[in-house]
Amino acid sequence: MKDNALVTGFKTTRQQSLQACEPLAIDDYGLQAEAFTSPPKWHLAHTSWFFETFLLKPFLPDYQPFCEQYEVLFNSYYNAVGEQFPRPKRGLLSRPTVDEVMHYREHVDQAMMQLLSMVDHSDYLQICQRCRLGIEHEQQHQELFYTDLKYSLAINPLYPSYMNGLPEKQLTESSVSEPAAMQWCEYQGGAVAIGVDEAPLSHENFSFDNESPRHTVFLQPFALANRLVTNAEFAAFIDDGGYQRPELWLADGWAVVQSENWQAPLYWRERDGQPVEFTLHGLLPRNPDQAVCHISGYEADAYASWAKARLPTEAEWEYAASSQANDHHEYMTLQPSPASGDQPLLQLYSDCWQWTGSAYRPYPGFSPAAGAIGEYNGKFMCNQWVLRGGSCVSQANHLRPSYRNFFYPQDRWQFSGIRLAKDL
Amino acid sequence: MKDNALVTGFKTTRQQSLQACEPLAIDDYGLQAEAFTSPPKWHLAHTSWFFETFLLKPFLPDYQPFCEQYEVLFNSYYNAVGEQFPRPKRGLLSRPTVDEVMHYREHVDQAMMQLLSMVDHSDYLQICQRCRLGIEHEQQHQELFYTDLKYSLAINPLYPSYMNGLPEKQLTESSVSEPAAMQWCEYQGGAVAIGVDEAPLSHENFSFDNESPRHTVFLQPFALANRLVTNAEFAAFIDDGGYQRPELWLADGWAVVQSENWQAPLYWRERDGQPVEFTLHGLLPRNPDQAVCHISGYEADAYASWAKARLPTEAEWEYAASSQANDHHEYMTLQPSPASGDQPLLQLYSDCWQWTGSAYRPYPGFSPAAGAIGEYNGKFMCNQWVLRGGSCVSQANHLRPSYRNFFYPQDRWQFSGIRLAKDL
Amino acid sequence: MKDNALVTGFKTTRQQSLQACEPLAIDDYGLQAEAFTSPPKWHLAHTSWFFETFLLKPFLPDYQPFCEQYEVLFNSYYNAVGEQFPRPKRGLLSRPTVDEVMHYREHVDQAMMQLLSMVDHSDYLQICQRCRLGIEHEQQHQELFYTDLKYSLAINPLYPSYMNGLPEKQLTESSVSEPAAMQWCEYQGGAVAIGVDEAPLSHENFSFDNESPRHTVFLQPFALANRLVTNAEFAAFIDDGGYQRPELWLADGWAVVQSENWQAPLYWRERDGQPVEFTLHGLLPRNPDQAVCHISGYEADAYASWAKARLPTEAEWEYAASSQANDHHEYMTLQPSPASGDQPLLQLYSDCWQWTGSAYRPYPGFSPAAGAIGEYNGKFMCNQWVLRGGSCVSQANHLRPSYRNFFYPQDRWQFSGIRLAKDL
Amino acid sequence: MKDNALVTGFKTTRQQSLQACEPLAIDDYGLQAEAFTSPPKWHLAHTSWFFETFLLKPFLPDYQPFCEQYEVLFNSYYNAVGEQFPRPKRGLLSRPTVDEVMHYREHVDQAMMQLLSMVDHSDYLQICQRCRLGIEHEQQHQELFYTDLKYSLAINPLYPSYMNGLPEKQLTESSVSEPAAMQWCEYQGGAVAIGVDEAPLSHENFSFDNESPRHTVFLQPFALANRLVTNAEFAAFIDDGGYQRPELWLADGWAVVQSENWQAPLYWRERDGQPVEFTLHGLLPRNPDQAVCHISGYEADAYASWAKARLPTEAEWEYAASSQANDHHEYMTLQPSPASGDQPLLQLYSDCWQWTGSAYRPYPGFSPAAGAIGEYNGKFMCNQWVLRGGSCVSQANHLRPSYRNFFYPQDRWQFSGIRLAKDL
Repeated sequence: MKDNALVTGFKTTRQQSLQACEPLAIDDYGLQAEAFTSPPKWHLAHTSWFFETFLLKPFLPDYQPFCEQYEVLFNSYYNAVGEQFPRPKRGLLSRPTVDEVMHYREHVDQAMMQLLSMVDHSDYLQICQRCRLGIEHEQQHQELFYTDLKYSLAINPLYPSYMNGLPEKQLTESSVSEPAAMQWCEYQGGAVAIGVDEAPLSHENFSFDNESPRHTVFLQPFALANRLVTNAEFAAFIDDGGYQRPELWLADGWAVVQSENWQAPLYWRERDGQPVEFTLHGLLPRNPDQAVCHISGYEADAYASWAKARLPTEAEWEYAASSQANDHHEYMTLQPSPASGDQPLLQLYSDCWQWTGSAYRPYPGFSPAAGAIGEYNGKFMCNQWVLRGGSCVSQANHLRPSYRNFFYPQDRWQFSGIRLAKDL
Repeated sequence: MKDNALVTGFKTTRQQSLQACEPLAIDDYGLQAEAFTSPPKWHLAHTSWFFETFLLKPFLPDYQPFCEQYEVLFNSYYNAVGEQFPRPKRGLLSRPTVDEVMHYREHVDQAMMQLLSMVDHSDYLQICQRCRLGIEHEQQHQELFYTDLKYSLAINPLYPSYMNGLPEKQLTESSVSEPAAMQWCEYQGGAVAIGVDEAPLSHENFSFDNESPRHTVFLQPFALANRLVTNAEFAAFIDDGGYQRPELWLADGWAVVQSENWQAPLYWRERDGQPVEFTLHGLLPRNPDQAVCHISGYEADAYASWAKARLPTEAEWEYAASSQANDHHEYMTLQPSPASGDQPLLQLYSDCWQWTGSAYRPYPGFSPAAGAIGEYNGKFMCNQWVLRGGSCVSQANHLRPSYRNFFYPQDRWQFSGIRLAKDL
Repeated sequence: MKDNALVTGFKTTRQQSLQACEPLAIDDYGLQAEAFTSPPKWHLAHTSWFFETFLLKPFLPDYQPFCEQYEVLFNSYYNAVGEQFPRPKRGLLSRPTVDEVMHYREHVDQAMMQLLSMVDHSDYLQICQRCRLGIEHEQQHQELFYTDLKYSLAINPLYPSYMNGLPEKQLTESSVSEPAAMQWCEYQGGAVAIGVDEAPLSHENFSFDNESPRHTVFLQPFALANRLVTNAEFAAFIDDGGYQRPELWLADGWAVVQSENWQAPLYWRERDGQPVEFTLHGLLPRNPDQAVCHISGYEADAYASWAKARLPTEAEWEYAASSQANDHHEYMTLQPSPASGDQPLLQLYSDCWQWTGSAYRPYPGFSPAAGAIGEYNGKFMCNQWVLRGGSCVSQANHLRPSYRNFFYPQDRWQFSGIRLAKDL
Repeated sequence: MKDNALVTGFKTTRQQSLQACEPLAIDDYGLQAEAFTSPPKWHLAHTSWFFETFLLKPFLPDYQPFCEQYEVLFNSYYNAVGEQFPRPKRGLLSRPTVDEVMHYREHVDQAMMQLLSMVDHSDYLQICQRCRLGIEHEQQHQELFYTDLKYSLAINPLYPSYMNGLPEKQLTESSVSEPAAMQWCEYQGGAVAIGVDEAPLSHENFSFDNESPRHTVFLQPFALANRLVTNAEFAAFIDDGGYQRPELWLADGWAVVQSENWQAPLYWRERDGQPVEFTLHGLLPRNPDQAVCHISGYEADAYASWAKARLPTEAEWEYAASSQANDHHEYMTLQPSPASGDQPLLQLYSDCWQWTGSAYRPYPGFSPAAGAIGEYNGKFMCNQWVLRGGSCVSQANHLRPSYRNFFYPQDRWQFSGIRLAKDL
């Protein structure tokens, strides 16, 4: 991303956040159904706070914050910046209103334009690096916007639709033909390199710090499924007593199945005896050929046990994905599609994030950046599992072999699915 | 309330609910900070549901409900009507939107006008009775609207003001002179009658079923304080270690003091070292002569112990209040005022509800009405304490000696205060 | 109780506590299944602590405590004495061992004999009063010993028997004949006196402070059932959907039914398709004519609603019980018996405590004693319900019309049952 | 372990479990302070249940179980065997008594002797394998016996001593000289093999299934500290605000620090202003040179951050430990000792388990055994962290480079400490 490209990227990304909100009523902007989700309004404000905190306040001379108290209200988790308004209560911030948050965004946008024009600024390189991080950060929140909103709307028995009508492409595609049969793609492994070596905060050729440094790992021979597990396949697991058989589950996963009374993926429902699922287009018939979605890592692992397979490691996934062209989507489809195409591995990036069996830990030699910005990734590197690929609500430029997504194994509200692996 | 008066009462009350919402932003209508509060939008919808459920559906021929699913969404607690949307999640109903709820209200209002015009309806008397109950019910929710909104706004560190500017009357009144000195008013007791004998659902001369039947109780000689405990007096209790001395507290109360870390009334704050309190006008200096407000029954009881007094019983309160003219306010002041006037007992109705030491139980001979409407009061008659009087956010026509309000002893979000009593 | 009688009473009571423990294995002495129960060993130690704290330390010259740390370990809830070991962890005090606690008891007993022999002690009267209170206190703990032990043993799938073999009397009595038919005993009420006027801490003619002062109440005409509700009658309530019909329940009670999934009284079980119940003699066939036992106040209230009756008030109960001879049992039977006899009211004292509809509050004019001993009853006077009568595990000398027992309405582990009442 | 050796091993191990209990009072056998600990009596019974379930019932003709219900009572977590008595309530099983459990052990021992003598049994090899597993299993429970008992005794303000008197060796050793200075031992890494290839259930040359298969990993150059972090060093971390500085902690760890209010290692106390710690010998002065013990993985990680180092990976640890002689202790010392010796890496096995930064996951190619016995390790392979080495309460034959211990990162009740690592 060149410097002009940086300005363009900034404007485009900021605009995308607003566009994503267009279908909403004002009433929707404060929705927060659980502590792990955030309201749309909060996403809009926090992404602005990020630019204000890490760029405008330290680098723009005489910058006047829009409102002093936002420093606390919209701080997500940066202890080095200071106190944070309690996460579970973000939905209770009726003030600032949506209107005021929009003004806040404009205030930040204007100041950012001013800052980015200061090409002689003594910290210009760092400004560009941080601006690029802020853009990528806002894109991550755009994905969270969709997953959080879907979760909150699903609480409502009216099953509100975020956007009416499934894109024509998907409606015509669905179930017209048999899905691609599942096949195993084999890899010999050995000592291979994964990760990237770019400076993490480079504003060109960006990658997150958790993708570095590039390093050698040793892989045994393995195979990956060429496509994701489908709704029909997952239904067969359920019909075979999958949720009632502890021998298929990790002990911690089985405990959650019991305590949460899990019986099916998060958004599966029955209506008039027919299988449906809640989507961003409201309740829709469940497409048997579509990748199963919104399942936890525990469910992914149990399914793999049932299928006499296992989850891939993140190194296996990255190594295999790196060995073919990256043909990710260019637009969000909001729902997974059935597998199609002629690459060895299908559905790498555009349908569901794929749970790996790897715990999220730092790569050998990783160390977080100094200061508050070092809290971006490093402190979360425990207890979560790595997911690889991308989903139907991911931003296109995040879709690459080395990207490491991570969630707790019980999390289900992301667009997360299953790609099987096995030893050779 | 005569029949024309009934129509007028209906229109006026419905209008008052809308007026109360005028200062709100759309963003505020969904606020629900705790399960025991409800969002403004929900109050607006539920009070309409009440008319729809208990009047329009059973009595208006060919009535078309506005939306079938509202029967569940806006049912508060009537099991005989059917399922209820979970109370703690009312704030997550972004749909219906405020606009849609306003349409719902209009739909109900028009149908009600139609029904009330059917003077030849075979159930006309019952219609009038239930309509009157619906009006009183909506007035109760108007008071809850203020208490719930205040609670939810207080979560926000911006301390938003519901309505800017304290009414001039209160600003000029406050602290200009010494408050009335506390004095004891003495009563001889004996066998006295309390409660009312009117048919509970009469639409003229209305009272709630829990105020009946009128019955005899036996009172020992007692005295009541002529005014409520002030902020200054309560501050003295705190300064004397009130919140650190278990011997002053009921055991259950002391357990709450510990678990909730109570140190002061609910809305007391410090700003720049000065005592302030959160009000519906935002943060204001704390007026030492004003009645202490937003305290739990446990705090009221502990204060009374500290003051070597006790809380009145509800029978003592009613008997004493009945012995003087009822000079309640005609408008809501949104904040308590310092005591003034020349009646024996001051501040009976217009400042804070007054905790009594009486458990909320049915009067001898009470039985709830048949059907769903019997759930209005009867099933709540345990574990709560009776409060008497009225407050600065009560509707004027609810202010009478026999009115029984009731909350759990740990509740603090109502405008609740203390009137002391003692044995003679 | 004369002074010699006091020494005899002390010795007898102390001995009874040991006798009650005789059937136990050492393994049983530490059992505490829930925070609201206490282990047998703790009861033995705490009752000794009571004498040590309120008599030996203040009054016996040069008294040497058995172990300084017991002051904290065995303090139940006396804040004025000092800190308390956390109640839910009493079962974790494997030390002192049972042996050491027995030595502690002997140490206290010897010192008490010494103190009671000091008839010239300047505080002799107070010593006698407190000694009497300590005796009554230990007798209350003897009843708790049985209720707590039963609760803890019931957790064990082996269903251990505290004492093998039902007393012959009960086995032969059970079900041989039809139980007495239920009849209503009528009372005219009016202004009547309840409570006792004795000095609460008198050591002769003892009563607890919560039974005083004697005072006038006004009763409407009422009737009481001549016997308690039986297992067969309660089974009919269950068969009629009692636990599935919210309209029968107080709202708080219904919430507990849901959260705890109550379906039957606490100790009802099925074995090989037959109705059984857990008793202190292990699992026994359920006797249909026996008083239903181990039910909460909520269940009692719901049953009364179903039976189109209500619970008595404590004043009604006391007034009615005072009008006939007190023919309580002289020994504990450990299980309720079917109703028999020829008094108007049967089963007043010897089967199950009887839930009243009265909240546990101080009588008019009550004030707790000064100092720590004032914590005995006063601070618990809220949120609990009064039970009257006595049970098959109560000490005989506690059985009198004025005795006020009290538990939370959700409590089921006491021997608690139902006597119906109605308005006339 | 040859076949005769197997019988000897069985007898010795069974005897050791009893010897460990000798200092206990009967009162102590039921102690269970938290759900994650088990009572001594339960350890004694469950280890017998293991032999009964996996050897006697399937292989010994006409075996009569001691008590049918023990199958449920003493099943720890084997779903394939059947239901389990709830883990948090194990302390409530006063029956069977200690005496009865001792009889149960004898019953099992005799039947095992019979079974092991059947050298012509058609499943003799499997019997030997499972017997060896049962022995190792019981040895693991011997270690848990100490950790669980220490935890439960620590709840008691009397601070009971499991065994009076510190072994003379330790008393004379402590603090007499400066501890060995910390030094870095360097390793070049590369592609190295870890794990073992023995058949997991071999009864000779035993290893657990989670140590297999042996496989290649790739290590970057690294260094390990030659000894463990000491109490004095950890105290410096505390003095430098270690528990108040979120930047040192993983996010999940910081959340636990807040919610649990951690301020120091689990058993550190102050007495009369002096630093002491609770040990199996009661409260003892805290030895500054001793390895810091009973800390969580989060605390280990935070300390490492503070020391500008990191935790080792399990592969680094195993590789380094394999490169020197295994000079583990032959007896349990019950408390860590100061570092001494002349090997490159000190305190590998005999003081504290060492937290690694590796998540506990299966090795490449691992698959659990079929049937219930496959639940031994496999289903726990998520969310826990690997610890390596051994401790002062580990059985000597468990001390080897490849042994994988695992606990949740918040766990502190094991004898767990810190060995630092760094990149080269």
